Amino acid sequence: MGRVLWAPEVFNCSAPDAGNMEVLAQYGTPAQQRDWLVPLLAGEIRSAFAMTEPAVASSDATNIQTTIRRDGDDYVIDGRKWYTSGAMNESCQLLIVMGKTDPDNPDRHRQQSMILVPRHAPGVQVLRDMAVFGFDDGPGGHPELVFNSVRVPASNILLGEGRGFEIAQGRLGPGRIHHCMRLIGCAQRALELMCKRATSRVAFGRSLAEQGSVREDIAHSFCEIAQARLLTLQAADKMDREGNKSARDLIAAAKIVVPSMAARVIDRAIQIHGAAGVSQDTFLAEAYTYARFIRIGDGPDQVHLSALGKQQLGLHGASA
Amino acid sequence: MGRVLWAPEVFNCSAPDAGNMEVLAQYGTPAQQRDWLVPLLAGEIRSAFAMTEPAVASSDATNIQTTIRRDGDDYVIDGRKWYTSGAMNESCQLLIVMGKTDPDNPDRHRQQSMILVPRHAPGVQVLRDMAVFGFDDGPGGHPELVFNSVRVPASNILLGEGRGFEIAQGRLGPGRIHHCMRLIGCAQRALELMCKRATSRVAFGRSLAEQGSVREDIAHSFCEIAQARLLTLQAADKMDREGNKSARDLIAAAKIVVPSMAARVIDRAIQIHGAAGVSQDTFLAEAYTYARFIRIGDGPDQVHLSALGKQQLGLHGASA
Amino acid sequence: MGRVLWAPEVFNCSAPDAGNMEVLAQYGTPAQQRDWLVPLLAGEIRSAFAMTEPAVASSDATNIQTTIRRDGDDYVIDGRKWYTSGAMNESCQLLIVMGKTDPDNPDRHRQQSMILVPRHAPGVQVLRDMAVFGFDDGPGGHPELVFNSVRVPASNILLGEGRGFEIAQGRLGPGRIHHCMRLIGCAQRALELMCKRATSRVAFGRSLAEQGSVREDIAHSFCEIAQARLLTLQAADKMDREGNKSARDLIAAAKIVVPSMAARVIDRAIQIHGAAGVSQDTFLAEAYTYARFIRIGDGPDQVHLSALGKQQLGLHGASA
Amino acid sequence: MGRVLWAPEVFNCSAPDAGNMEVLAQYGTPAQQRDWLVPLLAGEIRSAFAMTEPAVASSDATNIQTTIRRDGDDYVIDGRKWYTSGAMNESCQLLIVMGKTDPDNPDRHRQQSMILVPRHAPGVQVLRDMAVFGFDDGPGGHPELVFNSVRVPASNILLGEGRGFEIAQGRLGPGRIHHCMRLIGCAQRALELMCKRATSRVAFGRSLAEQGSVREDIAHSFCEIAQARLLTLQAADKMDREGNKSARDLIAAAKIVVPSMAARVIDRAIQIHGAAGVSQDTFLAEAYTYARFIRIGDGPDQVHLSALGKQQLGLHGASA
Repeated sequence: MGRVLWAPEVFNCSAPDAGNMEVLAQYGTPAQQRDWLVPLLAGEIRSAFAMTEPAVASSDATNIQTTIRRDGDDYVIDGRKWYTSGAMNESCQLLIVMGKTDPDNPDRHRQQSMILVPRHAPGVQVLRDMAVFGFDDGPGGHPELVFNSVRVPASNILLGEGRGFEIAQGRLGPGRIHHCMRLIGCAQRALELMCKRATSRVAFGRSLAEQGSVREDIAHSFCEIAQARLLTLQAADKMDREGNKSARDLIAAAKIVVPSMAARVIDRAIQIHGAAGVSQDTFLAEAYTYARFIRIGDGPDQVHLSALGKQQLGLHGASA
Repeated sequence: MGRVLWAPEVFNCSAPDAGNMEVLAQYGTPAQQRDWLVPLLAGEIRSAFAMTEPAVASSDATNIQTTIRRDGDDYVIDGRKWYTSGAMNESCQLLIVMGKTDPDNPDRHRQQSMILVPRHAPGVQVLRDMAVFGFDDGPGGHPELVFNSVRVPASNILLGEGRGFEIAQGRLGPGRIHHCMRLIGCAQRALELMCKRATSRVAFGRSLAEQGSVREDIAHSFCEIAQARLLTLQAADKMDREGNKSARDLIAAAKIVVPSMAARVIDRAIQIHGAAGVSQDTFLAEAYTYARFIRIGDGPDQVHLSALGKQQLGLHGASA
Repeated sequence: MGRVLWAPEVFNCSAPDAGNMEVLAQYGTPAQQRDWLVPLLAGEIRSAFAMTEPAVASSDATNIQTTIRRDGDDYVIDGRKWYTSGAMNESCQLLIVMGKTDPDNPDRHRQQSMILVPRHAPGVQVLRDMAVFGFDDGPGGHPELVFNSVRVPASNILLGEGRGFEIAQGRLGPGRIHHCMRLIGCAQRALELMCKRATSRVAFGRSLAEQGSVREDIAHSFCEIAQARLLTLQAADKMDREGNKSARDLIAAAKIVVPSMAARVIDRAIQIHGAAGVSQDTFLAEAYTYARFIRIGDGPDQVHLSALGKQQLGLHGASA
Repeated sequence: MGRVLWAPEVFNCSAPDAGNMEVLAQYGTPAQQRDWLVPLLAGEIRSAFAMTEPAVASSDATNIQTTIRRDGDDYVIDGRKWYTSGAMNESCQLLIVMGKTDPDNPDRHRQQSMILVPRHAPGVQVLRDMAVFGFDDGPGGHPELVFNSVRVPASNILLGEGRGFEIAQGRLGPGRIHHCMRLIGCAQRALELMCKRATSRVAFGRSLAEQGSVREDIAHSFCEIAQARLLTLQAADKMDREGNKSARDLIAAAKIVVPSMAARVIDRAIQIHGAAGVSQDTFLAEAYTYARFIRIGDGPDQVHLSALGKQQLGLHGASA
C-alpha cells in the first residue's frame, strides 16, 4: 500500500534529497554542483542514496561489498543495494553510491568511496521494491538495485578515492536530525489526534477522556515529546554553533531517543483509536512504520548507543 | 500487500472459522448445524464474524448500532461493520452478525442478538477492504460491509433474541486463547530467527551473537515466551476443567500478556535483522502487525485490564 | 540509618526551608516576615511543612482532617501529621501547618487555611520518626506529629482563612522544581560514578566498560538526563517569564519525568556497582530512595499525570 | 533499621542456611555432616556463606582474591569478604568460605576451593555491618569480615582442593530458586495489600479502586506474578526430574525474571500506599529492598542473561 496521506505534509523537506543536496554543496566540484545540485534545488529532479546492502550488516561501513573499480577514464560499479529510498520516483535522476575503491587498504575507513551514478545508466537495474511493514512507500519506493558493470566518468567521484567514509559521517549527522524533526512532528500530530479521539468516543458510559489510563497516556506523551523536542533543538543548535563533529554526542542522543519516542506515542494513539488506528483512515499506522524503520535506518540504535556510551566513558571514566 | 508467507502455517486453525464453529456447535439448532457447521468442518466453506463497527467503540457491546428488526417470518438487518476478517475469501458463505433486536431494553446486555446471514444475501455490500499497517491480508481481508435491509428467515437467529451478549462472551474466551496460541508460535519462531541471524551476521569485527546486548535481547525473549506459554496453557487447562466462565481471569491475563509479549519479541528480532526485518523477506513484519492488531482485536487491552483489576479487587479488597 | 554522605552537598538549598521562605516572602505579613523569614534567611533557625496526614490520601487537599478553630484571639489546632520533614532538627523553630478552618464550606477549595505554629508550642508532640526505605534521614527526620489543642495567636494565620489551598498551589510549584533540580544532580553524579566503576572493574576477562549492555545503560542514562534537564530548565524559565500558574503544564511534566528518570539512572548505577551499590559506601542507595520518595512526595505521579492529561485534552480535544 | 516485620514469615526456610545445608548434605564427609549439618538441621546453630569480596567483581569467581594456603595439617585463610549474610547472628557458628588454593592453575575453574571455618576461629574479625538501602538487616546482618591468617584443620576442606567452583555451581542453583519462591510470596502479599488499600482509600471523590490506572496496576501485577510463579514451578520441577545442571536454563530464567517482577509489583503497591509505602508501617519498603538486592545477589542479572542468551544461541543458532 502506498503512503498517500502524509506524503505532502511530511516529506516536503524530503529524505534523501535534503541530505544529498548537503553532500553536493559541501563536497561537490563546481561541475558536479552545476549538473546535479542546481536541478535538485530547483525541484526539477530527485535523487537517492545507495548505501545499504542486503548481504551484509551495512551499519558497519567496512562490510560494504559493492566495488568501484578504476578503468581508464571511467569507474565501473558492481554490486547490490536495497532500501534505496526514492529511487523509483519518476523524476529520480541521480544515485549517490557507496562502494569500495580500495578493499585491501589496511586503514578500514579509507577503503570506501562515493560516486555519482545517473539513475538510468546502463547496468542499473531495479530488481524489486522492498516493503516497510506492508507499505511499498510508492511512488519513490525502497527498491533493491543491481549495479552490473555500470560505467561512469572518473570525474563523478565525490571528493576523491578513499573519502567515502568521511562523507558518510558528514552526511549522516544532518540526515539524522532531519528524521528526528519529522518524527517529532508525527508524534505531536498523534498526540493531538489522541486528544480529539478521546473526547469524541464513549465506552462503558464515559468518554475515553474521562478514563484515568487514557489521561495518563496523553500526559506521558506530552512529556516525552517535549523532552525529545528540546534535545533535538539542542543538537541542531550545537551543530550550527560548533559543527557536526563536536555535536556528535547530541546527534547520537537525538537519534536514539526520537524514533523510539515517536513509535511509543503513536502506538498509544493507535490503541486509543481502536481498529481505525491500524487502518488506512488515519496517518497513524503509516507514521508508526516510519518511526520504527528509523530505529534501523541511518544506523540502528545499537550503533549509536555504543558510540555514545564510549564517549561518556572517555569523559567520566576512571582514567579520564 | 497480502500476507503470503505464513498463512498456511499459522492460519490452519484459523480465525474466525474456529470460533464460529464453536458458536454453532454450542448454540446452533440442529438445522443450523446441518446447514453451516457441517460444511465448515469439512472445509467446504468459510465464514466471518461481523461485530466491530466503525462509528462506535465496539469493545463496549452496548454501543452497537446495527439493527435486527423482526418483520413477519423474517429479520431485517441494517448497519455497517468493518474488520470483518475473512469475509472476502472466495469460499466465505456465512456471516455471524451481531446487532440489536431490542435497543431500549433496560438491561443493556439483553439488547443484542446474533444472526446467521449468508455472505451473498441481497443487501450485503462490500464497501472496501481495510488495512492493518499496510497489509490488506488478502485473500480473506478485513472488509468494511454495509447491511442494507438484508432479509433472512427468522430461524436464522442464534439461541434467541437478546442472547447476543451471552454468545459473544461464550465465543470470545476460546477465540482469545486461540490467538494467544498462534502468537506464542510467532514469538518462538522470531526467537529462533533471531538466534540464526545473530550467529550468521558480523558487525564491527564480531558476530552479533557475541554482542552483549543481543544476548540479553535473546535471553529476555526466552524468559517472556516461556512465561506466556505457561500462562496460556494454564488458562486453557482451567477452561477444560472448570469452564470458560470460571477461567475468565486467566483468559483475560493471557489476552493481556501474550500480544504485547509477542510484539516485543518480534520487535527485537526485527532490530537484529536490520532492514530485512521490516521487509517482505522474513515473516517478522507481518507477524508484528498481527501481534499489534490483537492488542485491539477481541477486546483492547484496557478492557481486559479493567475487568481483571476489578476481579482481583473483589477477591482481595478491604470488603472482601 | 541517617543520611550522612550527601547531606551537605545536596541539601544546602534545602527542602522544606526554601519553599517555606518563598511562602513567607510571598504571603507573609511584615510582622510574620520579621519574626520568621529574617532568621530563616540568616540560617539561624530551620522550619518544616506539616501537610500530609497518615489517615487520609493527602494528595487530595479536601481530605485533610486537621482542624484550625478560632477561639477568641487565638486559633486552636488539633490533628495528626506525618512525614513532616526536618521537624526534628535541633534548630527547627517553625511549622507551617495546613488544616481546615471551614470544613463545611461548599467550595471545597476554601475550607483550608495555613497557620504558623512554633515548633515547641505546648501540645505539639513528636510521636515517632518515620523511615524512607530504612533511612531515618536524621537529624531532620520525617516525624509523625500530634497537635493536641495547640493554641497560637490569630495573627499567625497566613493570608487569611480559606486561603490554604491557594497558598499550597503557590508553594508547591517552586518546591517541585527544586526537587527536580536536586534529582538531576543526583542522576548526573550517578552517571559519572557508573563510568568510573565501569572502567575500573573487570569481569569475565573484560572491563565492564567493554560490555555492550553496560555501554547501552550509560548511553540511555545520558539521553534521559539530558532531556530531563532541558525540560526542567524550560519549566523554570517559563515560571520566571510567565509565572507559576501559566507554567503549570511544564512543572507537572518535570515532576512526572524527573523522579522516575533519576530512579532509573541510579538503579542502573547500583547494578553496575554490585553490592557496593546498595551499601553505605556510595551515595547511590540513599539517592535512590530520595528519588523514589519524590514520586510520592509533593503529589504522587498519578495526580500530576491526571492534571496534565486533562490540560492537554482541553487544548486539543474535539470541543477545543 | 533492622527488618522486624517479615522475618518470621519469610526467613523460616532461611538463606543462607538452607543452601549451606544442601552443600553439606551433598558434598560433606560423614564427619563434616555430623559436626555441622546435624546441629544446623536441629536449629541449634546457624551459618553464613562467605563468597563476595569488596575489591573485585565476585560474580566472576576467577576474580576471588582470598587465599587458602596448605600449611602442614592445616589450611591458613587470608582475605576479606562482605555481605556475608547472617554472620552476625548470635548463634552463627559456621562460615563456608570460598578462596583460592591454586591461583596459578591454568584451568581457571580449578583454582578455587571451599572450606569450613568456625565463626569464632582466631583471626576472623567483623569489620563492620553493611547496609541494604539503609536496612542493616539485623540481627544476622551482612557484615564485612577480615580473615587474618585463620587456621583450620585440613579436614575442613569441602570435597577437595580445586572443587570450589563446582560446589558453587551446585549450591547456587537451588539457592536461587529459594529466593525466587520467597519473592513470589512477597509480590503476592504486595498485590493483596494493594487491593486492600485501593478499596479503603478515597481521593478526588472516588476510591482508588475506581481509578482506571490503579486497576491496570493491579491487573498487570496479577499477570506478572502468575507467569513468574509458573516459571519458577517449572524450573523446580525440572530440577527434581532432571537435576540442577539440566535445569540451568530455567533456573537462570527464573532468577532473571522474579526479582525484577517482585520489585515492579512492590513498587506499584508502594505508590498506591503513598508515604505509608516507604515507611516502617508496611512490609513494602523492606520487601522492595530485598527484591532489588537479589537482582545483584547470587549473580547479577547480566551474568544470567549472558549465560541464557548463549545457551539459546547454541540451541537455535545458524551452526546449531
